[in-house]
Amino acid sequence: MRNEGLGSWPARRARKTPHRTALIHHGTTYTYADLHDRTTRLAHVLRAQGVRRGDRVAYLGPNHPSYLETLFAAGTLGAVFVPLNTRLSTAELAYQIRDSGAKTLLHTGGGDQAKELSVPVTIEAEGGRYEELLATAPADPVDEAVGGDDLCLIMYTSGTTGRPKGAMLTHANLTWNAINVLVDHDLIADEVALVSAPLFHTAGLNMLTLPVLLKGGTCVLVGAFDPEATFDLVRRHGITFMFGVPTMFDLLTRQPAWPTADLSSLRILTCGGAPVPPPLIAAYQERGLTFLQGYGMTEAAPGTLFLDAEHAVSKAGSAGVPHFFSDVQVVGPDLTPVDTGETGEVVVRGPHVMPGYWGLPAETEAAFSDGWFRTGDAARVDADGYVTIVDRFKDMIISGGENIYPAEIEAALLAHPDVAECAVIGVPDEKWGEVPRAIVVPRTGAAPPPESLLASLSGQLAKYKIPKSLILAPELPRTASGKLIKSRLRATYGTAPTLDEQDSSQR
Amino acid sequence: MRNEGLGSWPARRARKTPHRTALIHHGTTYTYADLHDRTTRLAHVLRAQGVRRGDRVAYLGPNHPSYLETLFAAGTLGAVFVPLNTRLSTAELAYQIRDSGAKTLLHTGGGDQAKELSVPVTIEAEGGRYEELLATAPADPVDEAVGGDDLCLIMYTSGTTGRPKGAMLTHANLTWNAINVLVDHDLIADEVALVSAPLFHTAGLNMLTLPVLLKGGTCVLVGAFDPEATFDLVRRHGITFMFGVPTMFDLLTRQPAWPTADLSSLRILTCGGAPVPPPLIAAYQERGLTFLQGYGMTEAAPGTLFLDAEHAVSKAGSAGVPHFFSDVQVVGPDLTPVDTGETGEVVVRGPHVMPGYWGLPAETEAAFSDGWFRTGDAARVDADGYVTIVDRFKDMIISGGENIYPAEIEAALLAHPDVAECAVIGVPDEKWGEVPRAIVVPRTGAAPPPESLLASLSGQLAKYKIPKSLILAPELPRTASGKLIKSRLRATYGTAPTLDEQDSSQR
Repeated sequence: MRNEGLGSWPARRARKTPHRTALIHHGTTYTYADLHDRTTRLAHVLRAQGVRRGDRVAYLGPNHPSYLETLFAAGTLGAVFVPLNTRLSTAELAYQIRDSGAKTLLHTGGGDQAKELSVPVTIEAEGGRYEELLATAPADPVDEAVGGDDLCLIMYTSGTTGRPKGAMLTHANLTWNAINVLVDHDLIADEVALVSAPLFHTAGLNMLTLPVLLKGGTCVLVGAFDPEATFDLVRRHGITFMFGVPTMFDLLTRQPAWPTADLSSLRILTCGGAPVPPPLIAAYQERGLTFLQGYGMTEAAPGTLFLDAEHAVSKAGSAGVPHFFSDVQVVGPDLTPVDTGETGEVVVRGPHVMPGYWGLPAETEAAFSDGWFRTGDAARVDADGYVTIVDRFKDMIISGGENIYPAEIEAALLAHPDVAECAVIGVPDEKWGEVPRAIVVPRTGAAPPPESLLASLSGQLAKYKIPKSLILAPELPRTASGKLIKSRLRATYGTAPTLDEQDSSQR
Repeated sequence: MRNEGLGSWPARRARKTPHRTALIHHGTTYTYADLHDRTTRLAHVLRAQGVRRGDRVAYLGPNHPSYLETLFAAGTLGAVFVPLNTRLSTAELAYQIRDSGAKTLLHTGGGDQAKELSVPVTIEAEGGRYEELLATAPADPVDEAVGGDDLCLIMYTSGTTGRPKGAMLTHANLTWNAINVLVDHDLIADEVALVSAPLFHTAGLNMLTLPVLLKGGTCVLVGAFDPEATFDLVRRHGITFMFGVPTMFDLLTRQPAWPTADLSSLRILTCGGAPVPPPLIAAYQERGLTFLQGYGMTEAAPGTLFLDAEHAVSKAGSAGVPHFFSDVQVVGPDLTPVDTGETGEVVVRGPHVMPGYWGLPAETEAAFSDGWFRTGDAARVDADGYVTIVDRFKDMIISGGENIYPAEIEAALLAHPDVAECAVIGVPDEKWGEVPRAIVVPRTGAAPPPESLLASLSGQLAKYKIPKSLILAPELPRTASGKLIKSRLRATYGTAPTLDEQDSSQR
């Protein structure tokens, strides 16, 4: 086949393992032969609707086989897949449709929102009409030449500041990320993955689903993460591989079924988004399970740093070392690596890193220096090369000439049993220029005095890092995908202290 | 690092798994940190000897850590590695040195032969002087930009006809082959490979050693295959992964220790070079072991077709289906695929296929058609896409308008218990133009009458395929690497029948 991209994956797997199960969704099973056949037919449907090489095809819906069918069908035609986040508002979705220029939208779940988006072609991608469309479409191969450097998808970054930007990812970018996962995880052909992390985010798609499909394993697609139902899914399908953020894994340990749940089939747990807290590592180790951890970003498709099971405890808190086919450095402003223990910016280079942002040449140029993608994340490297992400550089607080990273303070506060969530921002201070302030959401039922929370940080943090004020709040402002919106936090809590400032001269 | 080639692999592994064992040789253990350090130092040694980007560096010796150190050190400098076959004569070696233009030769084993080759720089790559060279060389990183399309090695094809040709393999070629192995084999980080197949051949290097090093496993290097010692090595090192040709695996079953040998650590047996005979498959299945089989060639780095364990029995005799990142077709003279069951030529395309032969633009052009590498092998494809290699096209016998493939007859003869080796050639015939003739080496102690051997083929083969004559011979002419030299066979046995021609009208 002349297709070297993801669009050829169903065909490449179907020639090897046609009868093995590729996908399971709500009790329906799709073999690799099915996936290949349905993908090919969908490509013909899209072509009949006018989709051509380079056109953008959007998809809106929770995890569903038609998500992957659309991704592969678009790839078969050399078209570009644009996955949309179901948690966004109609206005936000409309922006991404407009910005990407998608003229075709596949969606699940009725389509009321799809109608409001006024896309020329909308296709309901589940149920009887979709099946009929596929059944009546031709099944002959689509012979379109697609290369590794052709665009595969545009994925919008969640945009905690300003407009979301569309990260352009090529077929090669996604392929090399899947290869990096194969090198770092011991994936086997019999892998059964539970895909409850949303496929419209980079991690659920690229750290879990695509590597498993590359190996010929099975993906069990679940529309939404349900901690109680998870145990039953693990047992029933013999799940071997799960991916989630720490919150998901933490929720599982808080279920009544946790102590007795049968987890014997699980081999690989991958955790992304944030370092796994040591108590959570311990809870799973008691069950014989060790986390693989990682750090990445949409722009790097996403795997960048990886912490293997062997170092989960000895390097707890670190994001690990670079994936095999990736280069990562922590650099100063002049782009040369900082010394061990010093803080610098994480930059990344490799075949998995995007060529740029869709339609944003100036932002693209600003995002790269000398071929390195600048993550904007501050980090330190230890003597063994293990990278610990400290914080976003732009969230850094400069207080009396000292750099303070909110994430470090947040991690210390989260260790307090009464703290459910927290965030630290900088607020103006006459003497120090800026000082840290904590906003804390207490655990349900807890009402910790702010003073005691701050007192708990003594000895844990240098004096200048301890917040000079602390505000209790019912919740924190977050984006649709759950990321903290620090700008809104600053607007709400940045100027109006509710706790008397402590003597800020005692530092 | 700016090195995207194999030269960067030791560094990439050392940042992940510095303390894990990369190589074991004669009781000496080399960690990945060692391999990285020694490779870097050797690169400095080579550079001090004048080796520059693009220069060829030859290596002569049986399996030894310095083989891999030289391969990686050359890759670090952007130089080109030229492995030499220890079984060649001095004249043959001198030709490859001259043809490749290598000015540097690393060798093990005294160096008498190396002296005769009159290469400007020779380095004995084992023992005290080598260790001293490494110990006194700098250990700082070599910062040379090397890309995937840069040449990594020149490997000479064994040349059963005419001069050996140097297949040029890029870093990307070797990397994609290793990736194809990772997709098709369930390799894990704890793999322990027994490398007794020679590293100067493509299979031992590329189907076994490099994929295991990519995963961070351990390679036990053995200078020569010794069937009796193999069982001890398997038990002592907990070998999980072996590669060999059918003869090697057959020899193991003929050892006195076979019935009682502890093979419990073995997980993956890969067999190349020829299809595994069903009795051999059965012998290993009794021990709970199933062969992975493949078909490939030096020019394709080499993995091209792959038969997984699931189909070892149901598709016995077939070479399988293409590796994931490879395209293979069986085509007619017009390059369009032949129908199911018809015989055509195997052609292959993909990121693992060489750009061409060293210094031979005409041969390179002749080897490719429309981007496909023409293997010269005849094959059939079944309804499931499984390819069965029939024979080399140039060995085909045309008899009365019928195409006869010697390999088919050879396989039928090899099933006879008295046959150790055999070959079939075409000899001139007045009536049919050409008829097949068999040359048979009997098993030690056996003296089968030629007539009974031919009679055993009735019912197995169509009448026109049954040789019209059969000659018993003490041995068959083979190249240093064990390949049959059909041209010499034809010269010796092609004209002088020793068995009366049977009535060739009864077809």
